[in-house]
This record gives sequence, C-alpha cells and structure tokens, in this order.
Amino acid sequence: MAVTSLFDPSGIAVVGASATPGKIGYEAMRNAVEFDGPVYPVNPSAEGSVFDREFVPSVTDIEDDDVDLALLCVPAPVVPDVVAECGEAGIGGAVIFAGGFAEAGEEGERLQERLVEAATEGDVHLLGPNTSGFLRPAENLYATFATDVDRIPAGNVAVIAQSGGLAYAVAFHAENEGLGVSAMVGLGNRANVGFEEAIEHFDSDEHTDAILLHVEGTDDARGLLETCRAAETPIVAYNVGEQDVGDFAESHTGALTGRYELYEAGFAQYGVPTVRSVAELLDAGTALATCPRPDGPNVGVVTAQAGPGIAITDRLKAAGAKFPTLADETRETVEEILPGMTYSANPVDTGRPMPAFGDVVAAVARDENVDVVVVYELYEGAIGYPVDALEGLVAEVDKPIVFATGGPDAVIRDELADLEALGIPTYRTPERGADAVAALVQYALRNAEPEAIADDGDAVADEGVSR
Amino acid sequence: MAVTSLFDPSGIAVVGASATPGKIGYEAMRNAVEFDGPVYPVNPSAEGSVFDREFVPSVTDIEDDDVDLALLCVPAPVVPDVVAECGEAGIGGAVIFAGGFAEAGEEGERLQERLVEAATEGDVHLLGPNTSGFLRPAENLYATFATDVDRIPAGNVAVIAQSGGLAYAVAFHAENEGLGVSAMVGLGNRANVGFEEAIEHFDSDEHTDAILLHVEGTDDARGLLETCRAAETPIVAYNVGEQDVGDFAESHTGALTGRYELYEAGFAQYGVPTVRSVAELLDAGTALATCPRPDGPNVGVVTAQAGPGIAITDRLKAAGAKFPTLADETRETVEEILPGMTYSANPVDTGRPMPAFGDVVAAVARDENVDVVVVYELYEGAIGYPVDALEGLVAEVDKPIVFATGGPDAVIRDELADLEALGIPTYRTPERGADAVAALVQYALRNAEPEAIADDGDAVADEGVSR
Repeated sequence: MAVTSLFDPSGIAVVGASATPGKIGYEAMRNAVEFDGPVYPVNPSAEGSVFDREFVPSVTDIEDDDVDLALLCVPAPVVPDVVAECGEAGIGGAVIFAGGFAEAGEEGERLQERLVEAATEGDVHLLGPNTSGFLRPAENLYATFATDVDRIPAGNVAVIAQSGGLAYAVAFHAENEGLGVSAMVGLGNRANVGFEEAIEHFDSDEHTDAILLHVEGTDDARGLLETCRAAETPIVAYNVGEQDVGDFAESHTGALTGRYELYEAGFAQYGVPTVRSVAELLDAGTALATCPRPDGPNVGVVTAQAGPGIAITDRLKAAGAKFPTLADETRETVEEILPGMTYSANPVDTGRPMPAFGDVVAAVARDENVDVVVVYELYEGAIGYPVDALEGLVAEVDKPIVFATGGPDAVIRDELADLEALGIPTYRTPERGADAVAALVQYALRNAEPEAIADDGDAVADEGVSR
Repeated sequence: MAVTSLFDPSGIAVVGASATPGKIGYEAMRNAVEFDGPVYPVNPSAEGSVFDREFVPSVTDIEDDDVDLALLCVPAPVVPDVVAECGEAGIGGAVIFAGGFAEAGEEGERLQERLVEAATEGDVHLLGPNTSGFLRPAENLYATFATDVDRIPAGNVAVIAQSGGLAYAVAFHAENEGLGVSAMVGLGNRANVGFEEAIEHFDSDEHTDAILLHVEGTDDARGLLETCRAAETPIVAYNVGEQDVGDFAESHTGALTGRYELYEAGFAQYGVPTVRSVAELLDAGTALATCPRPDGPNVGVVTAQAGPGIAITDRLKAAGAKFPTLADETRETVEEILPGMTYSANPVDTGRPMPAFGDVVAAVARDENVDVVVVYELYEGAIGYPVDALEGLVAEVDKPIVFATGGPDAVIRDELADLEALGIPTYRTPERGADAVAALVQYALRNAEPEAIADDGDAVADEGVSR
C-alpha cells in the first residue's frame, strides 16, 4: 500500500481548523503553515481567515489538486464522514488526532470499523486515530497539534512509535542531545497504516539511515517482523511491556501489552537489536545510522581509564560481545607505543590519556580479529581528543568506532562534533557507549548468517500470529 | 580514624610540583592554588617559583602549621619516604597519584606495604595510591592533576568511587546535566583510607545529602556494608563486575572483581539501593538527596501521555514497585477534574496535558495509599508545567514527587528549574524518571523495617569476609 500522500504530501487541508489559540485546530494549523506547499483551513462554521488563509467549508470545496493530506481536528463521531469526503476530494492521506475509537470499548470499535470502511472506499491512508501525528523536519512538515515541534531538528533517524507520546519523547530527547530526526511518526490505533507501511515508506527515504521502533504489542507481529527483515535500513526496537500493566495498556492503543517475550524472540530472529529505554533507542539508532555495519561481535576496547573501561567491558560481556585476543602485530604496535603499560591485551588500558592515544585506537581498529572498536577517554585539556589520528580511520577499516567520554560540556561539545564528523558516534557516559556498541553487536549477531534463519521452526510463526 | 586532614585541610603542599605545563606536578599545582588556604610547591631540585609561590625543598621545610594535606606528584619508588617526611612534618593527609603499587604485582605490593608502614608510623591518612584524587568544589579544593575540574559545580551529592576515572565520569556527567557534587573522591588502592572512612567523613558533611558509591569489589565487604547501614545520609551504589572481565579488573585497583552477587545481596540487606550505570547513579542520588524519604513502595503514577506512562509503569513494576488502588476520595477528585477520561485508576492518564494537570498530581500525592508519586507530562507551551499547583506540595504530603518530561531544551530548562526549586527532581526521559523512583522504592523496601534485619543469617557475614 503506497502511503506517499500521507507521509510525503504536496498540500495540506486542516479540517476543523480554528482561529482560537489553544484549540487543536489552531495548533495544527499553526504547525501546518510552516510547510512549503499549499495549506487550507477547513471549517464549515468558520468565516474569514486564519494564518492568512481563507477558511473553506469542506475538503470537497478545495480546488487544488496538490492537496493530498488532511489533518482531522474534529471529534471522533464525525471522523468517518470527513474521511469519506477526503476520498471524494481525492485526498489520499489523513491524520486522525481524536481518540474514542478501538481503544475505547465496543462503541469505539464500531466507529473505527466505519472509519476503515470509509477509508477503504475512498482509498485514504489513515494515521491514527488516537495519534499526535507525524513530523518531517527537513520538509518543514509538522502534521501535529503539539507545540514547539519546529525546534526538533532534521536528522537521519526515523522514529516510528506505536504511541504518539513516546514518539515525542524520543524526538525531544534527540533535540536535547543536539540531534534530530528524519521523521517522527506516532501510529496510534493503526486503523489502516501500521508498522509495515511506515517502515516500508521510511526504508526508502533517502534521509533515513536508521529506523527506531517503539512497540507496545500489536496483533500483527509476523507482518511487522517480516517487514523488518526485508528492510535495507538498520532497525532497532524498543519493546515495552515486560510486565503486565493490565487495563492501563489495553485502554491505550487498543492493543494488549503482553506479547513481550514473543517480540523479544522475534526481533532476535529477524535481525533487529532491541533496547530498553528512549535514551538507548536513540543511542543505538545513532550508532546504526552512523557506523559501517559490523561484521561480527568481536569488540576491541581501548580505554585511558581503567574504571570506566571495566564498566564498559562488564556491560558488553553481559550483552553477548566477544573480546578477541589481539593479533601479534597489534600487540607489538601497542607495546611500542606504551612500553611497560599496565595492560596491553584486550581491553587496552593506556593508564591515562597521552598524545599517542589515537595511534593505539588505530592499531586496535586495524586488527583483523576486531569487528567493533569502543574507546573511553576522559577529556584532558592538554591533549584533547585524537581527532587528527582518527581522521579517515572509519573508512579505512570499514568498522564501527564508538567513542565514550566525560568532560566539561562547554569544552568538549565542539571537539566531540569533530569526532562525529569522522563517522564516530560519541557518548557522554561509559554505559551509553557500551549500550550503543551492544546494539551493534546484536545487529551483527542477528544478521550474520541470514540463510541460517529458517522459516520452519520460526517461533513467531508457530505462535499462529495472524498477519 | 579521623580523616579531617585529608578531606578538610587548612593548607596544601604539592610535592613534586613543577613549572612545566602538562606535567602532573604542574597540573596539580594549578588546581591546588584555587584553594583559599596556603599552598606550597615542594621540589628539592626546583628553583624560583610556580604560580607565584616559592619552591621549598621538602615538606619538612614548611614552617606553616596550617599545611596538613600533601599531594604527591612523585614516582612510586620515592612515595614511602615522602610520606615518612609528611609524618615528620605533621601533615596528616596525603594524596598519592602514582600507580605501581598493589595493583602492579609482587614488587608493587611490597612497596605498598612500606608505604602503609610509613603512614602508620607518621599517622598519615592516604588517598590512593593509584588515584586521580578528590574535589570539594564548594571549598575550591581540587586535589587532583585532572584538567578543567574547576568547571564541576558545587552540589549536594558526594561521589565516592573505587576508581578515580569512574569518579570523574560521574562528576562530569553531573556538570553536563547542570548539577554538581559536594565532593568527588577516587579511592584507588585504598592503602589506609577506604570506603568506610570516606563514607563516615561525608556522612557528617553538611553539604552532602546523598552519597553515590562506585564499587568494583573490595575485600572488606562487611565493613563497607555496616558503614552504609550506620550512615544517616542515604546511599546508592553502582556495583560493577557482574561479568568476569578477568585480569583486566585485577590489574586495576588490586581487587578482584567477582564479588558482584555478594555485594548485590549485601546492599539489599543493608539498606542501599543499587543502580547499573553512571547516569542512573546520579539520577538516583539526586532523587535521594532531594526528596523526603519514602515510607513504602506504593507508587502513584500520573501521566498526560499513555505511551510514556506505560513505559514508566512497566519499568517500575519490574523494579518491585507496587501500584495501589487509589482511595475513593482521590478517585472522586480525579473524576471531577477529568470527567469521562480514559483511565482514572492508578496510573491516572489525563489523555493530554490540561490546565488542571497539577490538581490531579496533587490529589494523587495526597492519597494515603501512595508513598511516592511519579509524573510524566510532555511539555505543551500553552499550558506549561504545573509549577503553581505543586508549590508547597512536597512539604505538605512529605512524600517524594518525581517529574519526568520531554520538550525542547531551551524552552523547558527554566521551567524545570522552577519545579526543582519545589523539591521535585526532574528527568528528561520516561525511564530516567522511572529509575529514579525505582531507587526510592528500593530505599523504602530496604529500610522499612531495620529491626527485621537480623545479624545472624547475614549472607555477607556467612561468607566469612574479613573486615
């Protein structure tokens, strides 16, 4: 199912647009007008204009073929009729903010059925209902009523979340970290656009280098997992719902939480690393988007301070990473640089930062036994980060190099940007670096031998999960 | 053992002080001169002055009774003799930066024995060897060679870490988060000052409201744990070493990693919450330092967005939190504020932020079944955070209230500071808020009935761990 009208529209109609600040129809309009294409406020009972655009009474009155996305800021009961009108008007995408559908008992379920019928009839792709919408900052496309969304920068990871609230949590966390998103999508009830359609769309988006999923448990596990396997873009998933939180989750997106183990096993089998928090989701996604794909789980650790190095190694070992013996040549090189140093096996501990620290990192990165390199170095002003020594290294070795550090924010911010410009993702605590590497290791382990993933004996398929 | 000379000196001697930038003896001197008391550079082979202070040949030549702390920037082999001179000079505290002692094989062990003998003889309290020192920002006391340390602000948590590198990782993470520390101590080899002495000292420090431990495994588990139990100040521990990382850890501080389970069980029994990363250590410490002590594990959840609320609840349930049914009165109040809302049990989901959100939080906080309140609310510009509604609430209910949120950094920074001024710690992702609450819940569970913690059947004591 093509969802281009929905996610890549040429023009926008805001249905239920309002001139009253604070109302959803006003906030959605305020966001929509940042878009470069035409934007029409639609409201049968409004007169005059809002944000310099004249109100039109109905989407069927818009004589502009460019309009192919409608943002529905209207109460649930009228949504099916408005979607039918969208179909008549040739509008192929609609975002439905209202709740009160499948997540809200039997009456809501019937309303959602009517909605899907109208959408099928009119060939309208629906985001929601019960969503806070989506964003594509690089296009100035803010299909949402949330405020301050234009502060979220453009980036190279697409967030596709079952919950709109969680999607914003990830996107604003990215902004707080000085990062951005290529897209942020809150799926909500997934009436006829779900994970599969969204993943397929952003898999082929040139601005998207990794896809970040938030999953609360859906009833189309098999379809989601097969879509993940088929995607070219690396995907990482935050699977919520280990514990039974009962009615609360059920009342949310109409989905039962409780398929946690099934999804964990499924993601493992279908090549998707999993994480356990919003912060880890972004950190892992950044590593997957930035680094070359790792060939295996063999990690070379280089640290200038033993304590953080132990913390990193401890955490990575628990995540399934392997720590290969370094090749003789590497050990010789390291011992030449660090005569008599404390520990020149793997991890390599340089004792403290020193000018040749980058050369040690390069030697380990060039080791044929090593698939991924993780570095820890507290900032020391007299030495700085090894930006010069690491220039060109990622391309040369074609391996992920991940850099974790600590230091005063104002001092390290720019220097870390220099490292990131070399294709080296940077993290501000030892464990954030370790967790990013853990995602790379999971990715390698889960994608190393695709032919070994047989269709029979498929845990998810055997559960009889319908698509 | 009183360690006042070490951690609360009146004057400082920097032994091995140097006028050559980049040398440890220069960097330590540069940091030391920020202290308000007298600071003397000591070096028998140097002439003239450094940072406007005249070199003196030996600590025994300093005719200033205020000098009671020496920073030893000298190679390992001469350290015992210098410590002996410190004893002669009446200097009661010494920080030993050099490595090459117990962590470095038999010869190093013998050197450390000589060092301890000299210290015992001269009544000198040693930090280290093999440490990067300590800081007390409020006193402008930077007993370290690390750079940029004066950027770490004064705060109300004391970091006591087995590893100096890990201590800096925590302190700079605090700085990055806009927070500070009352003290930061890297213990290193713990020749005669260890966890017990450091905890006891900062337990009675008026600027310290929580103590953050980093433990890699020591051979004095029983003493550490009993000191934790005796402390008035809440303590949280980051216990590293779940996995066997072998020689690497052993070569670090001369201690065997591998007592992980023992410590986990011990901390549980002795009332200390445990965490699993530098970031969690700071977040938990901030909550313990800021909030009233929780009476029990019963958490009331109030969320403006279901997805993050589910993530928080899921994580807290895994951590042992309970979610009590709200009292009838509370439910009535919430239903009055939120007629027909989606879920007015616990968690309370308001569907989206609205002006009365703070009143919902207050109603749940006043519920007698609730021991701790956790709130999640994405920022919405039109409404802002419920600062007015929450004013005075923490004191009124005498319970922890923890606030998690997401929003654009520049917009929410000041408003979050307003919430923090009300005694409400704030966190920028759902899971950070959940983990902070998990530490409070652990604290409540582990300290609820001190009389129930019997001395017999003590898992740690039964291990026969020597003090």
